[in-house]
Amino acid sequence: MEKLSVIKIGGNIVDNPEALKPFLEDFSKLKGKKILIHGGGKIASEFSKKLGITPNMHNGRRITDAASLDVVTMVYSGLISKNIVADLQALKTNAIGLTGADLNVIQSEKRPVDPIDFGFVGDVKKVNVDQLRLLIDGGTVPILNSITHDNQGTLLNTNADTIAAEVAIAASNQYQVELIYCFEKNGVLTNPENDDSWIDELSYSYYQQLLGEKIITAGMMPKLENCFNALKKGVIQIKIIHAKNLTSGVDGQAIGTCIFL
Amino acid sequence: MEKLSVIKIGGNIVDNPEALKPFLEDFSKLKGKKILIHGGGKIASEFSKKLGITPNMHNGRRITDAASLDVVTMVYSGLISKNIVADLQALKTNAIGLTGADLNVIQSEKRPVDPIDFGFVGDVKKVNVDQLRLLIDGGTVPILNSITHDNQGTLLNTNADTIAAEVAIAASNQYQVELIYCFEKNGVLTNPENDDSWIDELSYSYYQQLLGEKIITAGMMPKLENCFNALKKGVIQIKIIHAKNLTSGVDGQAIGTCIFL
Repeated sequence: MEKLSVIKIGGNIVDNPEALKPFLEDFSKLKGKKILIHGGGKIASEFSKKLGITPNMHNGRRITDAASLDVVTMVYSGLISKNIVADLQALKTNAIGLTGADLNVIQSEKRPVDPIDFGFVGDVKKVNVDQLRLLIDGGTVPILNSITHDNQGTLLNTNADTIAAEVAIAASNQYQVELIYCFEKNGVLTNPENDDSWIDELSYSYYQQLLGEKIITAGMMPKLENCFNALKKGVIQIKIIHAKNLTSGVDGQAIGTCIFL
Repeated sequence: MEKLSVIKIGGNIVDNPEALKPFLEDFSKLKGKKILIHGGGKIASEFSKKLGITPNMHNGRRITDAASLDVVTMVYSGLISKNIVADLQALKTNAIGLTGADLNVIQSEKRPVDPIDFGFVGDVKKVNVDQLRLLIDGGTVPILNSITHDNQGTLLNTNADTIAAEVAIAASNQYQVELIYCFEKNGVLTNPENDDSWIDELSYSYYQQLLGEKIITAGMMPKLENCFNALKKGVIQIKIIHAKNLTSGVDGQAIGTCIFL
């Protein structure tokens, strides 16, 4: 099977043009078949604030009401997606910006309203790898964001880390998939204050040990759970790296954390 | 050559869910290969207003500054495009929402700043029919909007009527193209106050006669100039119809205006 790189770029990189530009240059140089998944970061919150939409929270978790869904749709699948595509086209990478609704590539289902109604939030139900493959094998680079749909006419907001993992898992039937999470730190850190404290290799048993020692923080836990789940379901290799280390990270020898079972 | 329908839907239909929904149902039923191009209407103006962006005008024409470009990118290529795609997917039409940057389908060039700098406004330079054809021949329905790019990393705003005409012209090399402009009136009217006063058949000589008699209004003139230009450059048939008459319009026998040279 051919290799496919599924790259997720975090919100703090997307927010920062000085970090995003060199990242996109590295991404465009990355050899082989690839998919980019981007978060949204603070841009959506800023627009919500400007539009006078008050964030609706429940126990610290955001409720996506209709007005908030419109904002994330505009910001993620419009402003951010299309500017990334334009930048990549200028770098001679034939990018295409897709939501889950486009070509029905990612169908999700609205999260049950019981016990808490999170609003227009979707959990991934099906990734349409055949449609992605038609694009990828034609030399196109899909740029995905967190907007999916229920295939009944409703757009839904889905966690972009989860989308990256689900796309990687689904593509594992047809490709040897490497999943790389790029963000603003050097990897999984044992000391969040020290960017040099990254863990080179994180096995599932070591992860459980670090969880017990409370060294893995709550913020990193869902990302790592996504990673181990993806490895169990066929993804070959997973890395968590600083966005600036993308091209070195892909060659194997890298600053960053390599995740394995 | 195979037939291709290029359908433009006007802003007043896009703005009105009660008009858009039945239009999309008719569009999804339309047989054969097809492309949809949509305008944006008042939604972008409303968001600009809410965001406190003052429209920058010159002699009644809008200047697209950076903040306004962000708004039209969000609204046209995010909010409107992706909701239309989700609606069409629910109607079993395999739609994909594209700007000109996606797959580099429409490259434009920034309008010269002399005599007036209109800002981030682009005139169509090249339509990449080969990329559109790969999608269309694979059973996909491209949904285009007015956002294009200069292939150097900058998105540009382009008149959607012009995009429809340029796509129709470019596709005429590979398809027998029918171009249909759908809007909120029954066709080209001789009396703007009377929706029953549509002209059945409008030839170029009759158009010039009506221009002389000041029966064709300033608002309709650029649309008709686009039409005659497209016919001269190979488009087989052009119609201007009410959005509610799309499916009857396509079968030939219809309420609406048929344009010919």
